[in-house]
Amino acid sequence: MNHVLCLNAGSASLKFGLYRLDSKGDLLRCQFRGAVDRRDNHLHFRVAEANGAVLDEARWDTDPGAGAMVEIILGWAEAHLGGGALAAVGHRVVHGGVDFDGPVLVNAAVMRKLDALSALAPLHQPVNLATIRNVAALRPDLPQVACFDTAFHHTMPEIATRFGLPRALHDRGIRRYGFHGLSYDYVAGRLAQIAPGLAEGRVIIAHLGSGASLCATLAGHSIETTMGFTATDGLLMGTRCGALDPGVVLSLIRSDGMSAEAVEDLLNRQSGLLGVSGLSSDMRVLLASDAAPAREAVDLFVYRVVRETAALAAALGGLDGLVFTGGIGEHAAPVRASVVQRLGWLGCTLDPAANAGVREGSIAALGSRVAVHVVPTDEEVTIARQCGTVLRS
Amino acid sequence: MNHVLCLNAGSASLKFGLYRLDSKGDLLRCQFRGAVDRRDNHLHFRVAEANGAVLDEARWDTDPGAGAMVEIILGWAEAHLGGGALAAVGHRVVHGGVDFDGPVLVNAAVMRKLDALSALAPLHQPVNLATIRNVAALRPDLPQVACFDTAFHHTMPEIATRFGLPRALHDRGIRRYGFHGLSYDYVAGRLAQIAPGLAEGRVIIAHLGSGASLCATLAGHSIETTMGFTATDGLLMGTRCGALDPGVVLSLIRSDGMSAEAVEDLLNRQSGLLGVSGLSSDMRVLLASDAAPAREAVDLFVYRVVRETAALAAALGGLDGLVFTGGIGEHAAPVRASVVQRLGWLGCTLDPAANAGVREGSIAALGSRVAVHVVPTDEEVTIARQCGTVLRS
Repeated sequence: MNHVLCLNAGSASLKFGLYRLDSKGDLLRCQFRGAVDRRDNHLHFRVAEANGAVLDEARWDTDPGAGAMVEIILGWAEAHLGGGALAAVGHRVVHGGVDFDGPVLVNAAVMRKLDALSALAPLHQPVNLATIRNVAALRPDLPQVACFDTAFHHTMPEIATRFGLPRALHDRGIRRYGFHGLSYDYVAGRLAQIAPGLAEGRVIIAHLGSGASLCATLAGHSIETTMGFTATDGLLMGTRCGALDPGVVLSLIRSDGMSAEAVEDLLNRQSGLLGVSGLSSDMRVLLASDAAPAREAVDLFVYRVVRETAALAAALGGLDGLVFTGGIGEHAAPVRASVVQRLGWLGCTLDPAANAGVREGSIAALGSRVAVHVVPTDEEVTIARQCGTVLRS
Repeated sequence: MNHVLCLNAGSASLKFGLYRLDSKGDLLRCQFRGAVDRRDNHLHFRVAEANGAVLDEARWDTDPGAGAMVEIILGWAEAHLGGGALAAVGHRVVHGGVDFDGPVLVNAAVMRKLDALSALAPLHQPVNLATIRNVAALRPDLPQVACFDTAFHHTMPEIATRFGLPRALHDRGIRRYGFHGLSYDYVAGRLAQIAPGLAEGRVIIAHLGSGASLCATLAGHSIETTMGFTATDGLLMGTRCGALDPGVVLSLIRSDGMSAEAVEDLLNRQSGLLGVSGLSSDMRVLLASDAAPAREAVDLFVYRVVRETAALAAALGGLDGLVFTGGIGEHAAPVRASVVQRLGWLGCTLDPAANAGVREGSIAALGSRVAVHVVPTDEEVTIARQCGTVLRS
């Protein structure tokens, strides 16, 4: 009973990782990671050791469905436990609503509450819950733990959870939740190891990936974030629009005759870097392009990060540190350079050499009043740790 | 030919002012101001001298309609020209779209363009244009000038005009325009008189009234603002929600089965201070209340002003001055005090005595790195000046 399998289910992929726990439930190490991806009606399976060495690959030409994806992963994991056993399966679940402020052992009552939250995250929550049900069907006695993207933000003060809407709507759940909590949890914890003094202060974590948000942390606890009721709000993302005048949604429906479903697709799948550039949702492609629309998309991405970083600094009453994470945050040095340069007035100064070469650590110049770090995120480690916490309790 | 009548048409009132111009078209002075208000199916007419002394009042028990309101005002104005004549009627028009970056003499071609913009401001633009048509029907030869709330923001850089939406939507006008431009124009001009050095710097003007927005000005020109495609976006307002996750709009339509019309009414007439407090849209009532929901509404109003002031400071690359205007900005000293206190980290310090007593001028403490002023706004003066500009040209 010394391993946990972590599952991170998206609409077209199922990522997984196998982690070993010690006898007290503390995380020892990652054994391997992999993913099953659905592409062009093929199914690709790939698994690698923690150091990146590929262990196994496979491909199916007909899509066997989500249940079969889970079965493939479970089977592979159980064949590679080295004599140990699976203690639990941990799941990333996007929405824990108002009730769940931490990870929870899944049972029928929990599933009922999580099902009720599907309306708040229709693109993600049903996929997460279907994965839990698929595991339960295959291994009914295996404990499962739900780990929430929203839970990290339960420390936000009431004021940060409110929209300017009638109280009755807030009271029935139309409020700001925030997401990317598993990533923020990991990064805040890692920062406490590599920069313990800073981690006690006013720090903004910028999770910049195909989804992107900022989190304002005070002594490691979330007090504000840019995503709201849904993961569409806030920063510009790969294909999501981020913050948008609500009047635009109404105009598209009333004047353009679009359905709510078509608008949802437009805002979540055709907008963001893809929509503004007309070229690609991939920051690497845009940074490599000379086309003016590509540059405009990158500039808008940076502009919105800069604008919202300052807004979150205001919520914190000042800024001690800025931490970049996520695919863009970890790898797009030119984006980091532009953000830090435009935040120079707040006391950020970049060390260009460190910025170009860093994997983890400081990229601020000596004497920068505001610390600037890169910290690679690891949501699966947070899931594994949260499983350990639940198993211990 | 030495007077202009300025008309500011809302959904339930028609405000007006008579201004005298010199022979070159420069504004000399305000002769009087007044309004016709529709209340409980009565029509109230009230006009006062520039110093506030009431000149005339009247009441009609049956509503004679918008055309009759215009006729009453025109008749009164023409009877009080002191031997002079009306050179023009100037109108506040909420939306000038992409084409109009300044005031314009109204003709048939202009009216066609302005009619086409009604879809972008369905609550205000048709009322503004109906007022122009009512004047034209009564005085076909009288020149009319349209003065736009959007025009002041034509200096915004392209990046500030973009949502994270597909380019094609931007190109057909789904972009950020900004509003309250007649107010910002007045305040920026007045600041150049009372604090000329500051007016050349990075200044945020906070127009806080029943509608509320911020404008970031660099050397007196708008480079960013909080309102977007519509006047619903941005700060918390009297009955408008301000910034809202677009996913909330979609959820209200899809999960709650509301129509787009019902959502528009909810966001514009039942939200904001009124919705959050459940009590009143009037800041004076909320400040005088001990009820927790009233305090929460005020706190949220301040929080959003603080958050967005910092965001706009980021667009400016720092902050030299903050100017309060509008009904709340001019009169709600406790709101100003809370905003400045929460922006202390940016270098704002309040002089509490000045804040309590000021009508126009500085409310910053000696040594405050950021200047803080109160400047009463006057949109009708901007309209009168813009009429003079058009008449001169």
